[in-house]
Amino acid sequence: MNEFDEQTAVHASADGEFKADLAPGWVVGGGVNGGYLLAVIGNAIRASLPGKPDPIAISAYYLATSEPGPATVTTRTLREGRTVATVAADLVQGDRARITTLATYGDLGDLPDDVRTSAEEPFLPPPEDCVPNTMAPEEVRRIAPLMDRFDMRFDPAHVGWAVGEPSGNGVLQAWFRLHDGREPDPLALLLTVDALPPVTFDLGMPGWAPTLELTAHVRAHPAPGWLKVRHATRNMAGGMFEEDCEVWDSAGRLVAQSRQLARQPR
Amino acid sequence: MNEFDEQTAVHASADGEFKADLAPGWVVGGGVNGGYLLAVIGNAIRASLPGKPDPIAISAYYLATSEPGPATVTTRTLREGRTVATVAADLVQGDRARITTLATYGDLGDLPDDVRTSAEEPFLPPPEDCVPNTMAPEEVRRIAPLMDRFDMRFDPAHVGWAVGEPSGNGVLQAWFRLHDGREPDPLALLLTVDALPPVTFDLGMPGWAPTLELTAHVRAHPAPGWLKVRHATRNMAGGMFEEDCEVWDSAGRLVAQSRQLARQPR
Repeated sequence: MNEFDEQTAVHASADGEFKADLAPGWVVGGGVNGGYLLAVIGNAIRASLPGKPDPIAISAYYLATSEPGPATVTTRTLREGRTVATVAADLVQGDRARITTLATYGDLGDLPDDVRTSAEEPFLPPPEDCVPNTMAPEEVRRIAPLMDRFDMRFDPAHVGWAVGEPSGNGVLQAWFRLHDGREPDPLALLLTVDALPPVTFDLGMPGWAPTLELTAHVRAHPAPGWLKVRHATRNMAGGMFEEDCEVWDSAGRLVAQSRQLARQPR
Repeated sequence: MNEFDEQTAVHASADGEFKADLAPGWVVGGGVNGGYLLAVIGNAIRASLPGKPDPIAISAYYLATSEPGPATVTTRTLREGRTVATVAADLVQGDRARITTLATYGDLGDLPDDVRTSAEEPFLPPPEDCVPNTMAPEEVRRIAPLMDRFDMRFDPAHVGWAVGEPSGNGVLQAWFRLHDGREPDPLALLLTVDALPPVTFDLGMPGWAPTLELTAHVRAHPAPGWLKVRHATRNMAGGMFEEDCEVWDSAGRLVAQSRQLARQPR
């Protein structure tokens, strides 16, 4: 089994309750990456809902940082309709909920096949002309083992932050795939929307940007291959900023969108 | 007391439980408007959290339509920190939750006053050169008494749908205020983000677009006066679309942003 499936695995332990083991490889700074946690929760919700395997919308509110090790995901189905179901799920460690979520699940394969997207696919130079995450300095990789889970290729036009020259535009773009070649699917998209460094890097604010809330919409099964990920912020104010994320698949389809509200790095 | 405050009022009935009376004036089509319901829920959360009066982020999942009449809002505080608290709240009618929400509250007045917004304020002709909602046909106003709660002035560049000539761009813009002159505040912004007709009107799809999920971020106390509201969609696909909303206050500040995922009108 590949790393992502192995490390997001859950095991039913009671009615609506699932055990997970958060792997240390997903740590970034002081805690476990929020996108990985979302994928673990998303996998538990999937396991609780026969016939509705795919996240369509999920909103996560981050209550406290999570640590590597055992975790429990509790799920409660609030409404099960013919095509979609709505579920509340919490990720708990010790006696404390670390993340609380609401989600709507269904079967993306059952949706009609109309696509009238007017958003434009971001332009990125080919992966071999972009800046790989393996070029990150050793001290960054030490506090962010998360980086080693991915093969990321940053758009050189938005990577000035890596050499102390952020563009100031509030945009990051990268090619993205899991480092072991595991192909993208709807659960991996939940990880993908919160995997890049915070967009505040491009505004000259390095450092951790704690997420208050993140909502992701998964709109289609991604085609195999590289994903294009674009993060942008337009409303940095009052000590907070929104981070909008778009994920485009190798067939040129906008397969996921997310927005998070985060605190500015200190 | 003004209409909005009177009709979003809640009364504590038990620990974390509040009674509301949903007023018939907020009906649109087959149910009560989602933005009004969000304001009622938002008011109950405010009442449950002394010292943290303002919604900062709220995510609502719509389970079933609501009807005018008595409703109960139940609130559960999940975490109360120094500056923000996270709360789960449900709006219940009969024995059935109609909307379930997660929210982060705090005091917008306590936030630092930095504003580095790079989003551009939408251009709208002056209100007197825009198309008022009072020009809506009698049959529309009969099924949408909601319309009478507002003074809206639609940007003529995006109002072709009203005369059967939608622009096809997926954009709606309007000046917005409550019809009785009640000034905007953070709770009224929760209403404002879901008050305009669905953006699908501009794509030649009239009709009701049921919301699956809506998340709003309130970023500042709005200045008194007209609000500018812009709705846009860029990813109409698979029978669903996202609707992004921006609300700008009379001082030119982007005070609220929301995104919802909705089903295409049939």
